Amino acid sequence: MNQTTNPVSVDKLLQDLENHIQGFQYGDSPFELYEPISYIMSLGGKRIRPLLTLMAYALYKDDYESILTPAAAVEVFHNFTLMHDDIMDDAPLRRGKVTVHEKWNANTAILSGDVMLVKAYGMLVDISPEKLPEILRLFNQTAAEVCEGQQHDMNFEQVENVTEEDYIDMIRQKTAVLLGFALQFGALLADAPKEEAQKLYDFGVNIGIGFQLKDDLLDVYADQAKFGKQVGGDIIANKKTFLLIKAKELAQGELKTQLEEWIAKDGFDKQEKVKAVTTIYDQIGIKELAEAKMQEYFKKSFDQYHSLHVPNLSGFKLLLELTQDLVHREK
Amino acid sequence: MNQTTNPVSVDKLLQDLENHIQGFQYGDSPFELYEPISYIMSLGGKRIRPLLTLMAYALYKDDYESILTPAAAVEVFHNFTLMHDDIMDDAPLRRGKVTVHEKWNANTAILSGDVMLVKAYGMLVDISPEKLPEILRLFNQTAAEVCEGQQHDMNFEQVENVTEEDYIDMIRQKTAVLLGFALQFGALLADAPKEEAQKLYDFGVNIGIGFQLKDDLLDVYADQAKFGKQVGGDIIANKKTFLLIKAKELAQGELKTQLEEWIAKDGFDKQEKVKAVTTIYDQIGIKELAEAKMQEYFKKSFDQYHSLHVPNLSGFKLLLELTQDLVHREK
Repeated sequence: MNQTTNPVSVDKLLQDLENHIQGFQYGDSPFELYEPISYIMSLGGKRIRPLLTLMAYALYKDDYESILTPAAAVEVFHNFTLMHDDIMDDAPLRRGKVTVHEKWNANTAILSGDVMLVKAYGMLVDISPEKLPEILRLFNQTAAEVCEGQQHDMNFEQVENVTEEDYIDMIRQKTAVLLGFALQFGALLADAPKEEAQKLYDFGVNIGIGFQLKDDLLDVYADQAKFGKQVGGDIIANKKTFLLIKAKELAQGELKTQLEEWIAKDGFDKQEKVKAVTTIYDQIGIKELAEAKMQEYFKKSFDQYHSLHVPNLSGFKLLLELTQDLVHREK
Repeated sequence: MNQTTNPVSVDKLLQDLENHIQGFQYGDSPFELYEPISYIMSLGGKRIRPLLTLMAYALYKDDYESILTPAAAVEVFHNFTLMHDDIMDDAPLRRGKVTVHEKWNANTAILSGDVMLVKAYGMLVDISPEKLPEILRLFNQTAAEVCEGQQHDMNFEQVENVTEEDYIDMIRQKTAVLLGFALQFGALLADAPKEEAQKLYDFGVNIGIGFQLKDDLLDVYADQAKFGKQVGGDIIANKKTFLLIKAKELAQGELKTQLEEWIAKDGFDKQEKVKAVTTIYDQIGIKELAEAKMQEYFKKSFDQYHSLHVPNLSGFKLLLELTQDLVHREK
């Protein structure tokens, strides 16, 4: 590995990316169609996915400015899924702001979302023609899997017994494959060898599964002072996270009865339910189980990361730091 | 022009297309996501758009079997728009069958529609790499315009005065550009010169506008015995068609008052309203105006068609016959 002379910082990448995302012309007429796109793209967020694309590119090449549009396409696609998921989940808020279907209406959120998906494809067409077919194939595969994952997630609400395997497969599709694609995409744009790009995909998928398990854990075990939203939200909503799925699988006798009662209960004090279910989790050792599973995915992903052969050592360290920060986040 | 030795028939094209559409594997898991796609694709319809792609291809080349998948992509895209439009319009029926959001629910129709759009793109990726970027650009442009047209159409419901120009522009985007793209697409796949492909696009757009004006006319003036659905549906719903827009623009004095009263009336006998508004149209000469506008677009389109330089005379005649049949349809 050779240290390059022009190391980039995460802040610089994020700033350039944010400027590009905010300055991009998604369309103007009719205003009613395009305003919700500007709105959702202005709500911020960590921009992890396009940042991963830029950072994967920067492992192999320095001129990341040349791929800001295709990198932003990944964020536009992600926000399209958020706009439609929020309708399906009847969510009132997104990043602390009113969701599109609440601010306008469901029809607007459907149609603006549709055109966002078209625009995401439009942001890919200037990729060099020799790379375009393969990248489109990978993007289509990823986009279909994200939809499949969302359908599995909705199906789970109607199913009594979701297995650990079903759950991991659902989060792999719904959230992890897009992280994998984002990284692979950046590597392919930088002309990295296909095996390298594939390793980055696997790294992204595995770390993505770990991140979702981390989300599940934080929802119950975060420090309320640092967390930013209500601890225990998943417990209140009976959301079938890794923690609840394992608890339902492993609870025996009196604990099993208590857990089932709390799940079935209609009128309840929220704090009381969160405290009671957390106590049940603690008695079964759910936290340790979930942490072990999460660490398993993190270990696998970092082993894959360290098997890469990248020319840009500063880029290698930067992406490692970014992902490790996410591994250790407390909110 | 040279007569080729292997003339195709519309029936043969349609049969091969239908077999391809029904046999295509859109996806299988989760079943809940893909079943609505098989359902809507099995409802039939005239398959005009992919048929136009095949026929435009057949103007220049004989092996239309090689482009069945990309041609079918146009139909998949069209059915995606129908699935989402039906949610937005709260339509109970599509081609005489229950709509997807009624048979399942709105969430299913949103998500299955999303994955249909992704699959339509997936059906384009095997186009030869040197043609792919241009075709994707044209498809993206068309897809965005179709969404823009739908938004304009929804906006019109809230607007008092829609002008003729606004209306023609809306139907151009919502329905005509996809016919134009379907033809241009077939020509480009057959390596036709770009000017030829552009002429076919213009032909398709103009004939598409004519077809929509024909729809508007038939809804009021069709022979009920041949029409298949209720004559006067647009009048009952106060739908802002070319006829109503021109009538509102041109009605004077007593006729104007009568028209405004019928539009504002809440409880009314449907037959009586249809008869009364039709009488108003007749007194202003709306039918003749709409027919003249329609013929203007048909004339423009056939002039463009006859300026083509195609090698396959039998294909030329076939596409001419198909479109003239549509021009003269009575339902």
